[in-house]
Amino acid sequence: MELPSKLLENAVNEISQLPGIGKRTALRLVLHLLKQPQEQTNDLANSLLVLRNKIQYCKSCHNISDLEICDICSNVSREQSLVCVVEDVRDVMAIENTGIFKGVYHVLGGKINPIEGVGPSQLNIKTLEEKVASGNVQEVIFALSSTMEGDTTNFYIYKQIKDYNVKTSTIARGIAVGDELEYADEVTLGRSLLNRIPFETSIKPY
Amino acid sequence: MELPSKLLENAVNEISQLPGIGKRTALRLVLHLLKQPQEQTNDLANSLLVLRNKIQYCKSCHNISDLEICDICSNVSREQSLVCVVEDVRDVMAIENTGIFKGVYHVLGGKINPIEGVGPSQLNIKTLEEKVASGNVQEVIFALSSTMEGDTTNFYIYKQIKDYNVKTSTIARGIAVGDELEYADEVTLGRSLLNRIPFETSIKPY
Ligand SMILES: [Zn+2]
Ligand SMILES: [Zn+2]
Repeated sequence: MELPSKLLENAVNEISQLPGIGKRTALRLVLHLLKQPQEQTNDLANSLLVLRNKIQYCKSCHNISDLEICDICSNVSREQSLVCVVEDVRDVMAIENTGIFKGVYHVLGGKINPIEGVGPSQLNIKTLEEKVASGNVQEVIFALSSTMEGDTTNFYIYKQIKDYNVKTSTIARGIAVGDELEYADEVTLGRSLLNRIPFETSIKPY
Repeated sequence: MELPSKLLENAVNEISQLPGIGKRTALRLVLHLLKQPQEQTNDLANSLLVLRNKIQYCKSCHNISDLEICDICSNVSREQSLVCVVEDVRDVMAIENTGIFKGVYHVLGGKINPIEGVGPSQLNIKTLEEKVASGNVQEVIFALSSTMEGDTTNFYIYKQIKDYNVKTSTIARGIAVGDELEYADEVTLGRSLLNRIPFETSIKPY
């Protein structure tokens, strides 16, 4: 794609480095910005610069936060001894949306992925171990996605903390509420049979 | 979607103003940038700022260009009397890619679209009329997309220039080379029958 302007080319090249955005889409986005008032581009660029250069993470759970200690970690009505291990802020938001969970989080910032060069030391695992070692954690819930990377990460963390006096659990996998059995993938259906629960439990109101 | 940080929220809101990008995609892009080195975000933001604030358009054809007069307009081997009217830089690139066209372009910058508040005065139509009035244009080729807005724009321009001594034409619409008739939409197939050309012309090598 030969562009008639170096400025245009630079912008298209930079945007198309974002995941899932090709050169054509990048050009479409740039041409859109050129038709909008200058302020829109300035506001967009500045919001990215400010975010990237001033971003802060909660010193306790490592979630993105504008405070040293985030609202969840500093909330006295949340159980600080119940720690849910997640990958990133999106998982925290998804679980918070359910309104079910009353514990706190520990945000790893990724999953162990040797192919992409992500090892345990690049993730927030050491601080989780320290938290557990302090004796203030009763239960660690693994809530990473059930991929090979997720399973590897769960198992690595499990090995680090299993000798402490701490309960470990993992969120239930199964058929989504309202889904038809016939459309479920067989691994999920199989797991949901193996991990069946007492019927009385399933009808408990929450 | 309640985000745990104002900085994050601002960036997500700004990105999701781009066409075709929702809040979820915006969040995914932002989290990607946060994992990359700071320079990537800085380069991206700066490329957008420089482009939007320093963008220049060719004084003759209005295509995006880093020069006062673009490479195509200043190329003496191109026929300056043959002017192809297009919407934006993408059309210029598409036609240049064919290697067939030896004339020059006139980039309108959009199409007349009353619903979106785009009238003739916001487009580069006046300068096209002036070019034609100068007597240096022999033929104007309309190459806008064949939508209602494209047809409206073509017809508006046609009315402005028809009293000058200038030939007007429009690019052929028909079945794409290599396409099966049975899969063609009926309007295109109908037009390709009405606008059939002598067989001898179709086998001319180019
Ligand atoms: Zn926190
Ligand atoms: Zn030009």
